[in-house]
Amino acid sequence: MKIIWMMIGKTDFEYVEKGVDEYLKRLKKYVPVELMVIPDVKTGAKPNADLLKEKEADAILPRIKDTDHVILLDERGKQYSSVGFAEWINEQINYSPANLVFIIGGAYGFSERVYQRAKSKMSLSSLTFSHQLVRVVFAEQLYRAFTIIKGESYHHE
Amino acid sequence: MKIIWMMIGKTDFEYVEKGVDEYLKRLKKYVPVELMVIPDVKTGAKPNADLLKEKEADAILPRIKDTDHVILLDERGKQYSSVGFAEWINEQINYSPANLVFIIGGAYGFSERVYQRAKSKMSLSSLTFSHQLVRVVFAEQLYRAFTIIKGESYHHE
Repeated sequence: MKIIWMMIGKTDFEYVEKGVDEYLKRLKKYVPVELMVIPDVKTGAKPNADLLKEKEADAILPRIKDTDHVILLDERGKQYSSVGFAEWINEQINYSPANLVFIIGGAYGFSERVYQRAKSKMSLSSLTFSHQLVRVVFAEQLYRAFTIIKGESYHHE
Repeated sequence: MKIIWMMIGKTDFEYVEKGVDEYLKRLKKYVPVELMVIPDVKTGAKPNADLLKEKEADAILPRIKDTDHVILLDERGKQYSSVGFAEWINEQINYSPANLVFIIGGAYGFSERVYQRAKSKMSLSSLTFSHQLVRVVFAEQLYRAFTIIKGESYHHE
């Protein structure tokens, strides 16, 4: 079992890149992680949200294997506590050999086709974060989850 | 009216500093913002959470004026949507000349004395974020709130 983390578009901000690197480096001590950065899709001069989401779906879906367990990071998803999220990950690790594929979409969210392929949705907050900042927040949360699973002192209740 | 943003301890990570700088620079086009970084408190070799929180309170409380409206960033606080948070800030701006003082505590949260002085508590997520990462998340959210108030295109519903 490994964690595959898919995201749309390159990282625009140096702080996002540094933040993600920081937590991924730590996370890799606990679990194999594969990063898949899907190149930004072009839809012409005027951004067209629907077309963009469909083109992104065309890039996302072929990268998913039949056995993968797909979790979308989505505003309408389930909101966990950090301990709850760690417990959920731990259950997946213990009961299923499937890879966990977490996907962070583009600025406009996901196509309906991607929602249909996903098994779960999770939300990091009732607030909206930029799809860039979400990367750092999610990286820290994934790292935090594994420190909780391993009983380490990073997380204080 | 201005926004005062108080936080405990220096920023440990370059990515946090860069992220906060990025959003503060943009935010200052909309509203005066004053940053108060309260130096880390020492409690001896072994960390003592209660003593730490009391010493932090000793540093925080004298910096607050009687007229200030104090909002703590706290896990048990109210969870807003980004639009809800923007509306709340806009109400404060329109109906009260008081400064808004947002405080991000240390790794162990706040002393009871600080809770008593605060008027409101807000939570950025049901997940726990590191007290370092919270700074970037909050900076982006404050910036997002002002783009919503001003009707700019940064935030997509």
